[in-house]
Amino acid sequence: MEMSDVGVTVKKSENFSEWYTQVILKSGLADYAPLKGCMVFREHSYAIWEKIREIFDKKIKEKGHRNAYFPLFIPESFLKKEAEHFEGFVPECAWVTIGGSRKLEERLAIRPTSETIIYKMYAKWIRSWRDLPIKLNQWCNIVRWETKATKLFLRTREFLWQEGHTAHATREEAEKEVMEILEIYRDLMENYLAIPVLVGKKTENEKFAGALYTTTLEALMPDGKALQMGTSHNLGQNFSKVFEIKYVGKDEKEHYVWQTSWGISTRLIGALVMTHGDDKGLVLPPKIAPIQTVVIPIFYKEVEREKILEKAKEISEKLQKNKVLTVLDDRAEYTPGWKFNDWELKGVPLRVEIGPRDLEAGQVTLARRDTFERIVVKEEEAVKIVNEVLKEIQKNLYNKAKKFLDEHITTVKTYEEFKKVLESKGGFIRACWCSNTECEEKIKEETGATIRLIPFKKEKVFSNCVYCGKEAREVVYFAKSY
Amino acid sequence: MEMSDVGVTVKKSENFSEWYTQVILKSGLADYAPLKGCMVFREHSYAIWEKIREIFDKKIKEKGHRNAYFPLFIPESFLKKEAEHFEGFVPECAWVTIGGSRKLEERLAIRPTSETIIYKMYAKWIRSWRDLPIKLNQWCNIVRWETKATKLFLRTREFLWQEGHTAHATREEAEKEVMEILEIYRDLMENYLAIPVLVGKKTENEKFAGALYTTTLEALMPDGKALQMGTSHNLGQNFSKVFEIKYVGKDEKEHYVWQTSWGISTRLIGALVMTHGDDKGLVLPPKIAPIQTVVIPIFYKEVEREKILEKAKEISEKLQKNKVLTVLDDRAEYTPGWKFNDWELKGVPLRVEIGPRDLEAGQVTLARRDTFERIVVKEEEAVKIVNEVLKEIQKNLYNKAKKFLDEHITTVKTYEEFKKVLESKGGFIRACWCSNTECEEKIKEETGATIRLIPFKKEKVFSNCVYCGKEAREVVYFAKSY
Repeated sequence: MEMSDVGVTVKKSENFSEWYTQVILKSGLADYAPLKGCMVFREHSYAIWEKIREIFDKKIKEKGHRNAYFPLFIPESFLKKEAEHFEGFVPECAWVTIGGSRKLEERLAIRPTSETIIYKMYAKWIRSWRDLPIKLNQWCNIVRWETKATKLFLRTREFLWQEGHTAHATREEAEKEVMEILEIYRDLMENYLAIPVLVGKKTENEKFAGALYTTTLEALMPDGKALQMGTSHNLGQNFSKVFEIKYVGKDEKEHYVWQTSWGISTRLIGALVMTHGDDKGLVLPPKIAPIQTVVIPIFYKEVEREKILEKAKEISEKLQKNKVLTVLDDRAEYTPGWKFNDWELKGVPLRVEIGPRDLEAGQVTLARRDTFERIVVKEEEAVKIVNEVLKEIQKNLYNKAKKFLDEHITTVKTYEEFKKVLESKGGFIRACWCSNTECEEKIKEETGATIRLIPFKKEKVFSNCVYCGKEAREVVYFAKSY
Repeated sequence: MEMSDVGVTVKKSENFSEWYTQVILKSGLADYAPLKGCMVFREHSYAIWEKIREIFDKKIKEKGHRNAYFPLFIPESFLKKEAEHFEGFVPECAWVTIGGSRKLEERLAIRPTSETIIYKMYAKWIRSWRDLPIKLNQWCNIVRWETKATKLFLRTREFLWQEGHTAHATREEAEKEVMEILEIYRDLMENYLAIPVLVGKKTENEKFAGALYTTTLEALMPDGKALQMGTSHNLGQNFSKVFEIKYVGKDEKEHYVWQTSWGISTRLIGALVMTHGDDKGLVLPPKIAPIQTVVIPIFYKEVEREKILEKAKEISEKLQKNKVLTVLDDRAEYTPGWKFNDWELKGVPLRVEIGPRDLEAGQVTLARRDTFERIVVKEEEAVKIVNEVLKEIQKNLYNKAKKFLDEHITTVKTYEEFKKVLESKGGFIRACWCSNTECEEKIKEETGATIRLIPFKKEKVFSNCVYCGKEAREVVYFAKSY
């Protein structure tokens, strides 16, 4: 197979959407499933998901959360209990109507989210203040029957996620939980995925169906569209009232619990691809890369073979021992050049080459995936410098993305400006809003942009409402989005 | 709450089935879901599943397997491709017939197993010998529409499992893979779960629908019934021929691949409960216990409180530092006696008590969950001895189960004996068989016992067929089973 067949054949800057799909398919991250709207998470993307899972799982377990697993099936009557929730999710449910050879009496939704089935259990388990808080999380598959065009990782009928569900004695505790989780998400996104995010509240219109309010983390993709990276909801007592989740307090009276729910999904992998990828393929931040370095032996004559292979093995073992996730690519059936391209396509942050000249000089050559810079280092310093360079790559990827984000937040005062910026540059548009849903909806209708978030720290109003021109009540961030 | 309300109220020896359910519900392992046939894996059982996952995952990754994730939905036409497979699984599928508000053109099964959807992809991915072997595994939920009574962990409409799916260039490689996985399973079951198993082949009648042959691991439960703990199938070319999974070999000719599939599920947790549990509740082998020791401070007077709590904290931190999974139970709202019962119910292998007398004498008191033996040890030796005792508990649980298994393998020569042993003692019945499916089916019909396995090492025939009296061809192991 020629590399020209397998490499990415379009430029990121020229056809972003086609580039995105090619990178995913050709790097072996994922594939389309042989049924409409579904995808296969191949080993490369699943390994990234395992890393995300490991990082997040550790952090929530340290905070006392535990994992559990609730049924895939949700009876329609459960979904109906909370009216907003029902309205929000029913249009995109897949329904099981036959079990074995029998028609079911009540149809069952494949979970589009699990609030209702989980809270049915919470109502059973929670009796007294001693049972609180409950802080459970589940890692599972989710089904939403999308009808728009499939977009790998971003819009598929099935995806993977985690959903946390907590119940607390007081409103304050629930509020604290919402913000603590948001902070863990932010840390994961910025310090591991190297994707900077804006955080804030959703408007009434954009909040989770059934929540009191929704907090969100929004990233900006290179095509100027925002991507919702995760959400953390304060459910208030909306669900506890309909599901009768009550506890007897220290005051010996009955109270409804206060609840939160929150989730991140495999769409984060889509964000990784878009944010860091380049014309050669994927670029993975070292802290999330399942393989951080690949060691490639290079020899032209058969006589060099054994010694170089031995040295390559030695170095890759040294790296592994020092907890650098390393693969030695000693496959005989491919040339070094083919391997370079292949691992670049797959986004491995750092390549370690060992050729005849390196061997002779007691050195190795490092090649950075992010900048393509080549660095010759003494063999005995290899581990130390590999670690340093990996840290630099991590930082560099974040900084590049942060610079892009910062340069794509534009403050506007008029609707004309708003539309011009949206068309020409995209990104986040910072504007004043009167807080009326009507203006929000008109803007969406006319431009496709929605309010991505209201910053937590109220920013100072600097103009009238960008749409109606009446008095504005707050500063919000608009964008087109995935 | 009085302990009499929460403790197990029936004896294991008196009402095994009721005891089993009580232990699961009261230890907080699991609960019935609010829809028929389904269960909730609460945090305690999910933590055990995470341990199983961690152990097995590490072992297969070392052997070069990778995890991936394939769609939940399987179009009916895929299932139909392999006739035996279709016949085996279709009667117990749950069917999605509506997506959003539309009736689907083809109904979709919720995966009862994923051979068909995965092999559809393998047919696409595999081109040349360079693409082989493919060794993928997925951890996922599985749905089989059971109609018999629900039994937590053993018979529910949804459960969790791993399914491995490999494709190889040669028959020999596939055979090797089947046996290597079987050995990893055996190691997991015997050396971690402390459950001894018999291994062998299934008969044609009992094999996986679509396999060339099935290998199995069978354990014996205390009520004399066998439990299939895991299976590893050699699929031969049955699926590769119907799904057209071909590769071009080094000989430049096209060949069908050879395949294997294998799985273990959350039913292993049911086996743990049954095998090791006692009248006080769960007993977990240390190597699979999410919590290995619980440290409980005991004080009667307020003046002792602070010092004892401090010491308890110190010891629990020391244990954690030495990688003993330890919890300090310093809850003020419960008495030490209540805590003892609670942790015994949950099966924590070892309790570490620190009371006023212990504090004074510079010692701690260990209490073994398996034997209830109490051991007083010097504080400075606590970590060392805790580790030793945990090892002993692990060994003791295995040995007890092994003794039970050995005592419940009975060799019989006649059908009269067969029936008598099955009625009176249960367990495995070792008997000679003519290899005719008819005899196998008659025995099943008349006694409920099936051939659990044919040992790999052909055992010497010692009588005529236990059913028909004609010449026997092999020695097999019968049992009633879950």
